[in-house]
Amino acid sequence: MTENDPEQDTLSKTTEGAPMAIVLGDNRYGKSETRVVRIVRDTDRHTLRDRNVSTSLRGDFVDAHETGDQAHVLPTDTQKNTVFAYAREHGGSAPESYAVAVADRLLAACPYATGAQVRVEEYAWDRIPVGPADDRRGHDHSFVRRGTEARACAVTVEGRGDERRVHVLSGLTQLTVLKSTGSEFRGFLRDEFTTLAETDDRVLATSLTAWWRWGPDHPADFDTAYETVKATLLETFATTYSRALQETLHLMGKAVLEAQPALAEIRFSAPNKHHFVVDLSPFGIDNPGEVFHADDRPYGLIEAVVRRDDARDDAVAWRDVPGFC
Amino acid sequence: MTENDPEQDTLSKTTEGAPMAIVLGDNRYGKSETRVVRIVRDTDRHTLRDRNVSTSLRGDFVDAHETGDQAHVLPTDTQKNTVFAYAREHGGSAPESYAVAVADRLLAACPYATGAQVRVEEYAWDRIPVGPADDRRGHDHSFVRRGTEARACAVTVEGRGDERRVHVLSGLTQLTVLKSTGSEFRGFLRDEFTTLAETDDRVLATSLTAWWRWGPDHPADFDTAYETVKATLLETFATTYSRALQETLHLMGKAVLEAQPALAEIRFSAPNKHHFVVDLSPFGIDNPGEVFHADDRPYGLIEAVVRRDDARDDAVAWRDVPGFC
Amino acid sequence: MTENDPEQDTLSKTTEGAPMAIVLGDNRYGKSETRVVRIVRDTDRHTLRDRNVSTSLRGDFVDAHETGDQAHVLPTDTQKNTVFAYAREHGGSAPESYAVAVADRLLAACPYATGAQVRVEEYAWDRIPVGPADDRRGHDHSFVRRGTEARACAVTVEGRGDERRVHVLSGLTQLTVLKSTGSEFRGFLRDEFTTLAETDDRVLATSLTAWWRWGPDHPADFDTAYETVKATLLETFATTYSRALQETLHLMGKAVLEAQPALAEIRFSAPNKHHFVVDLSPFGIDNPGEVFHADDRPYGLIEAVVRRDDARDDAVAWRDVPGFC
Amino acid sequence: MTENDPEQDTLSKTTEGAPMAIVLGDNRYGKSETRVVRIVRDTDRHTLRDRNVSTSLRGDFVDAHETGDQAHVLPTDTQKNTVFAYAREHGGSAPESYAVAVADRLLAACPYATGAQVRVEEYAWDRIPVGPADDRRGHDHSFVRRGTEARACAVTVEGRGDERRVHVLSGLTQLTVLKSTGSEFRGFLRDEFTTLAETDDRVLATSLTAWWRWGPDHPADFDTAYETVKATLLETFATTYSRALQETLHLMGKAVLEAQPALAEIRFSAPNKHHFVVDLSPFGIDNPGEVFHADDRPYGLIEAVVRRDDARDDAVAWRDVPGFC
Repeated sequence: MTENDPEQDTLSKTTEGAPMAIVLGDNRYGKSETRVVRIVRDTDRHTLRDRNVSTSLRGDFVDAHETGDQAHVLPTDTQKNTVFAYAREHGGSAPESYAVAVADRLLAACPYATGAQVRVEEYAWDRIPVGPADDRRGHDHSFVRRGTEARACAVTVEGRGDERRVHVLSGLTQLTVLKSTGSEFRGFLRDEFTTLAETDDRVLATSLTAWWRWGPDHPADFDTAYETVKATLLETFATTYSRALQETLHLMGKAVLEAQPALAEIRFSAPNKHHFVVDLSPFGIDNPGEVFHADDRPYGLIEAVVRRDDARDDAVAWRDVPGFC
Repeated sequence: MTENDPEQDTLSKTTEGAPMAIVLGDNRYGKSETRVVRIVRDTDRHTLRDRNVSTSLRGDFVDAHETGDQAHVLPTDTQKNTVFAYAREHGGSAPESYAVAVADRLLAACPYATGAQVRVEEYAWDRIPVGPADDRRGHDHSFVRRGTEARACAVTVEGRGDERRVHVLSGLTQLTVLKSTGSEFRGFLRDEFTTLAETDDRVLATSLTAWWRWGPDHPADFDTAYETVKATLLETFATTYSRALQETLHLMGKAVLEAQPALAEIRFSAPNKHHFVVDLSPFGIDNPGEVFHADDRPYGLIEAVVRRDDARDDAVAWRDVPGFC
Repeated sequence: MTENDPEQDTLSKTTEGAPMAIVLGDNRYGKSETRVVRIVRDTDRHTLRDRNVSTSLRGDFVDAHETGDQAHVLPTDTQKNTVFAYAREHGGSAPESYAVAVADRLLAACPYATGAQVRVEEYAWDRIPVGPADDRRGHDHSFVRRGTEARACAVTVEGRGDERRVHVLSGLTQLTVLKSTGSEFRGFLRDEFTTLAETDDRVLATSLTAWWRWGPDHPADFDTAYETVKATLLETFATTYSRALQETLHLMGKAVLEAQPALAEIRFSAPNKHHFVVDLSPFGIDNPGEVFHADDRPYGLIEAVVRRDDARDDAVAWRDVPGFC
Repeated sequence: MTENDPEQDTLSKTTEGAPMAIVLGDNRYGKSETRVVRIVRDTDRHTLRDRNVSTSLRGDFVDAHETGDQAHVLPTDTQKNTVFAYAREHGGSAPESYAVAVADRLLAACPYATGAQVRVEEYAWDRIPVGPADDRRGHDHSFVRRGTEARACAVTVEGRGDERRVHVLSGLTQLTVLKSTGSEFRGFLRDEFTTLAETDDRVLATSLTAWWRWGPDHPADFDTAYETVKATLLETFATTYSRALQETLHLMGKAVLEAQPALAEIRFSAPNKHHFVVDLSPFGIDNPGEVFHADDRPYGLIEAVVRRDDARDDAVAWRDVPGFC
């Protein structure tokens, strides 16, 4: 007789008699990538929130792992239903506000959970321009997907009542930017495997992922805050000279923190999307920085945090946010 | 001794003595997905052409297949070099013009080829807005990727000299659009497997692929023509009521052909990206077309051609363009 | 009043009075990528059919396009239901047999259709090996996904009764193979853009897509036929010397047609997945064909048909099968 | 004059005079996804190591971020060269051994680095079977890609000389497994958003990612250890009854730790790939667990650690390994 199931299966590695030295460590569970679209149609001029929502719970779920007893487990199917149901009341607001509402609800529904994390990716749509050339306006209910990037947030709520703590990260992924000049790379460390030539004029391109963490004072309007941070990131990238992607990211982070006092830190993950000047000299053609090969792999990957000196650490906020130093 | 190679390999299905009933059929070869970025830096205000270029040749390449003799084969590596080298002189112009130049060159370089096809995907970039709020301008050399769609063209040149024929398709892929109302689906055929309810108000969304074929008179400016066709597609999608995705595509095609006399036909491939109204009634919540689940698979797929009645067929233009009826 | 909808939308490009020169061309519609898994559990030793099924109809659907009238349209949702319902009775048999059954059903359900195409991708699973080392056996109901390739078929049925014609393609996609020697590439055509060095020992690798068309005599057992054709493709790739990917594909095609008299033709689409020898000489290290860079893009792309000389053409079978010459 | 570059760019957010409260936090940089294939051809019977290698360094790189000075930075291009050069000598051994060699080399080449991480994904290939039916053997130099999963390792070396510490994680990704019976889900927590029915017979499927951490005593042969751990994971999945994916993962983890005394812990990330029984009752057809819809999104996601009670924590080993609790 095995501890698992005597009738249906055949593995029987008995562990009886031995001191049970093997234990459950950290764990979480949830429902990932519920694709919910919320149309706000209070007037004929509709608005659209197009989201990919992932939820997870941490807490006392030992029995589910060790004995298969599900009494503490709020099913991931229920978490999905909650994502949809809460989209009805809260889905028209900023993703951060919606995420807080869902996280609070999951904690209320599952007393065995100690923390809930809700992550949202939001995809932007523009109104389709219609009308005569001298009076173009955005259509009331017809939209076209904008940009390659996704807005993102990751909200973690821990505790209840007086113990309740809300950790809010906002961010974006896949913001793809390129400078066709104003970038150099030289003066680097060399060893016997170094063949790279120094350059004082190169293409700099990245597909940026950035997350910024709000301190205790959240902005009144997360939507406006997002647009402002994104504009600062873009403008700093555009208007600063780059001695390395590291320096550019640092300048971008500083500019954001200077403009947004409520932010504690910002983190970047930035692939250096290499654009190699093509050697056309075998064909008797010069190439003064005009024809490039955009390579796929490998790529440099730069990850860095820019933070206020006095900001307290917040490991809980960043836990489970993938792909970051 | 096998016909292939006696020394290195071991398969020896001799076919000697038998009448050779097995022959080479249609074939082509080329280099796919050369990622060339052309920066035009004649002035400090740079422009950018970001492209994915695929070339292929048809012609007399029987020996390469039947005996391994490569004397007729212009290597795909050379085709790649040509794509880069021609980007220096022609890469700043419209993708259609560049594709014609490359196709002509490949035919000139390979006398055994009877036809060359050059396909281009082009990715749009916007200038990053900089400057004070009352004087925002696009930066000279810093850009951000725009949109999810790619502009495309497929140019086929057949013959040389007086026999030379140029076939030009322009198009776009992954133009993702959505109507939050103004779409119905009802009155359809039913059988015993039909469970779908009729609806007079649904979300209609698609990720459009469209290709349009130019007749003998090409536009003077393919760049402007592209923007005009795209604007017509978008505006027609936005402003027409939809009784089915088929009807909407047909209206879009008619509008384009009416506005562009030089076009012979337009072809659409349009996945019906289903947005299902979520049933919130088990939770006592109504859902008057506000909360939707955006499903991944399966999806409807509608493909259709809209053409001028008197346009001659042009099978050559469409050969090797994937994913179309 | 526009012809489309006067109340809800604003575009009104009237075309009345003008001779309507714009018409509907070829068209089809259907449901793509229904993911159906069929478990045959007649005994405790289950078997598994894991499939991605796409259906489409051609026929008289002019009204759906031109007026929005859906009376001829069997909804794609119904096609999906049919895919599931028919999986109950036919889903345990070979994908080709199942596809014929679904196609016949769709033609029966939609009298306005003149043809139905059913495409299936099937993913292979192995039984998980269990038991003592000297008596390993496959588990009755636990499986692990095998391989990267997918088996495929595309069945087109046209007409009914005496006019009924069944066209069967079988195939596979993404069969990834590599020869670490036994491949050369030399003697090719050169022009002024040619920089490629000749080589008499290179790595040859491809991710093969192949489709083979059955003549009027179908095999009794499509499952066995698939395994036999795949084994012939692999063995021929392995054991023949390659002077070019073209020659290798041709040998593979010949071997398959010689071994399978019921086949009319076979078509290949084969990316030449370049493995470049890395130049380690700057580091004082030789590299006698041992260290390679597996590049992503660009890649050569070879497409070719190998056919019986006397096989009749069958354009209907190949219509709508993407990515092929 | 801005601190960044007065001549080329225009942003001038001066921060002089203010106390600089904004600082660099954690950071790392490296080269990701170098695709190196190592062919061992010491004899005519070649072997193949097909890998995707990512390297990164942590250490004193403040100047690169804050002033753009690259004197401490060993270029990612050099890291790539090192990956290739070291593949010549070490590339034929287990990925873990190769990763340690590369990490040590990077630390030696860059005195400003305090730690190096090398991650490897390795793709398995089988020899193509050839020869007569009663004597099938694997070919000497022709291979076919096996399985969908990738073997993985993540090696972190910190310090030098007596301070040198090596942290080794081995693992796998995308091991896709399915049980067609022997799985239930019931007795779970319910709230007012719960609609899921309990089931005592369902399909359980996942695409497993697992990482296991070696304690101070590494196995003599990482290749054999990998095969053994994978076999234990598969056999336990196959032969144990599942009351939840959590329980199954826990049993798999326990079985691995019991069989491998040198392991300290194992971590799982397992999407619950839902297979929904299709309701065929509207068509008068029963469906006793035979026809399923394999859904894409959303999916449950279970993550858990199984560890020895007395194993010390090792945060360094897990840092930068994405996607894990």
